[in-house]
Amino acid sequence: MAITVVGSVAFDSIETPAGRKERCLGGAATHFSLAASFFTDVRVIAVVGQDFGPEQEAVFNARNIDIRGIERAPGNSFFWEGSYLDNLNEAKTHITDLNVFATFEPKIPDVYRDSNFLFLANIDPVLQRRVREAMPDARLVAGDTMNYWIKDHRPALLEMLKGLDILLINDTEARMLAGNNNLVQAARAVQAMGPHTLIVKHGEYGATAFFSSHSFAPQSKYAEHIFRAPALPLEEVVDPTGAGDSFAGGFFGYLASQPELTPATFRRAMFYGSVMGSFAVERFGTERLQELTRQEIDDRFTVFRELTHLD
Amino acid sequence: MAITVVGSVAFDSIETPAGRKERCLGGAATHFSLAASFFTDVRVIAVVGQDFGPEQEAVFNARNIDIRGIERAPGNSFFWEGSYLDNLNEAKTHITDLNVFATFEPKIPDVYRDSNFLFLANIDPVLQRRVREAMPDARLVAGDTMNYWIKDHRPALLEMLKGLDILLINDTEARMLAGNNNLVQAARAVQAMGPHTLIVKHGEYGATAFFSSHSFAPQSKYAEHIFRAPALPLEEVVDPTGAGDSFAGGFFGYLASQPELTPATFRRAMFYGSVMGSFAVERFGTERLQELTRQEIDDRFTVFRELTHLD
Repeated sequence: MAITVVGSVAFDSIETPAGRKERCLGGAATHFSLAASFFTDVRVIAVVGQDFGPEQEAVFNARNIDIRGIERAPGNSFFWEGSYLDNLNEAKTHITDLNVFATFEPKIPDVYRDSNFLFLANIDPVLQRRVREAMPDARLVAGDTMNYWIKDHRPALLEMLKGLDILLINDTEARMLAGNNNLVQAARAVQAMGPHTLIVKHGEYGATAFFSSHSFAPQSKYAEHIFRAPALPLEEVVDPTGAGDSFAGGFFGYLASQPELTPATFRRAMFYGSVMGSFAVERFGTERLQELTRQEIDDRFTVFRELTHLD
Repeated sequence: MAITVVGSVAFDSIETPAGRKERCLGGAATHFSLAASFFTDVRVIAVVGQDFGPEQEAVFNARNIDIRGIERAPGNSFFWEGSYLDNLNEAKTHITDLNVFATFEPKIPDVYRDSNFLFLANIDPVLQRRVREAMPDARLVAGDTMNYWIKDHRPALLEMLKGLDILLINDTEARMLAGNNNLVQAARAVQAMGPHTLIVKHGEYGATAFFSSHSFAPQSKYAEHIFRAPALPLEEVVDPTGAGDSFAGGFFGYLASQPELTPATFRRAMFYGSVMGSFAVERFGTERLQELTRQEIDDRFTVFRELTHLD
């Protein structure tokens, strides 16, 4: 089933110990949609400027991603410049130019309205909520956020969270949002804010899914079930930008491709999320996902299984 | 097969967010031997002072641990006081009184000499090496160390590492020892120092085993195999003291109990290590391991499997 994703489509200038790249195609919606496109149909809602041209369009087209919802506005696209020189787990932001994103008003094309799956990538929670409310028929709604919204836009964020089924955030964000350093207690607190399922990403240590009695079919025996997916120990991380969005794309894309959402489906989705995140960091920006094949994805899924399974 | 362990038997005064306990029975050899005792025969080499009495002996005796190698010396036992008030992952040391440990000269009882498995818990690498050389027939030798020895006693540590088959350390220690922040590269560098197998403990994120072509039988197809074991997401960590030693005890105890050391044996050993670590932190000092049953261990092993396995 099709996923509609709303979020940023941007240009990133990135410096890591592996080198420096200027104006890579980036943005949460870009990384998410590329990753998810290996599993299901994806439709993007975003805004770009006049610097978004045929070269960038071709990246989406090559993966059959529907970009009729990417609005063109006068000016430049969202631009971010950052580095990971000291710590590959945390970006240091040098420049954030919102540009056309400053006045973004998401518009949902009519052809997107039958999307059963909705992903609200990390943007202003007011916009996330508006999109969620404009698509009341979405069967499963997942989203992301970041420390900035947690700290400085809490009321809007809490309103948005009420409309989410699944929230994907990292450790620091989960602890900050819950005001609790214990991950299990923090997860329970976040789940009480709305999302029945919380995915906490641990960077190089993988990710943990906290399910509740509402995550699966009613009367599931899997209430309070927890599942841990590993990350692949990598000899070189070229560029961590977009790893979390690629995780989300693999996770949600796999879910959307399945006929039934069972605990087993969710567990496999966690693995596909980790798999897509592990590819994303192998090269700068979207380079690796652009040249990826489904066979490589399934081969790496097998590696993840061997990495964690006893038999 | 029997394990001989050399290391500290001590008293710990510990403060955590869950409370404070004075003079718990502690020390790396204590935690290790209690954990390993659920799997195989354990023999301890250590030194204690006059404050080590029948109450402490009873803890070892209840688990059938051989303490004929625990030497009694005039003075007090090793004493440590620390807290985990800000960070459950890192102890803040307030007091370290070596006491009788300052002049410890490990003596190996003749009845220990047929031990096929040897564990060198975290003590001066000069002593670790001496014990290793005094037991040349040990079939598998594992050990632990800490940042202090890595920073200030590197030459002695490097000598000791040459005699190890398996080294168990945490992330920070692995990166410090290798002088490399990438875990895969750091692991390879540490393995080149001696131990064919490196276990890196990630605290609440579990542990990663790096095997090499020497970890298993010759011509094994599992060269460069990596395995990740999870840690149990816990709602309350009462006292992290001894978690790493309990991991080592579960891991090495299970290995020693098995007829053959195959890749599958090592993977299960990683799980048993995590299982024992997860129990250790549930109460102060050795309290939880003292009252543990084998049934609880196997039940939790099942939980760990469910936490990580797709089917």
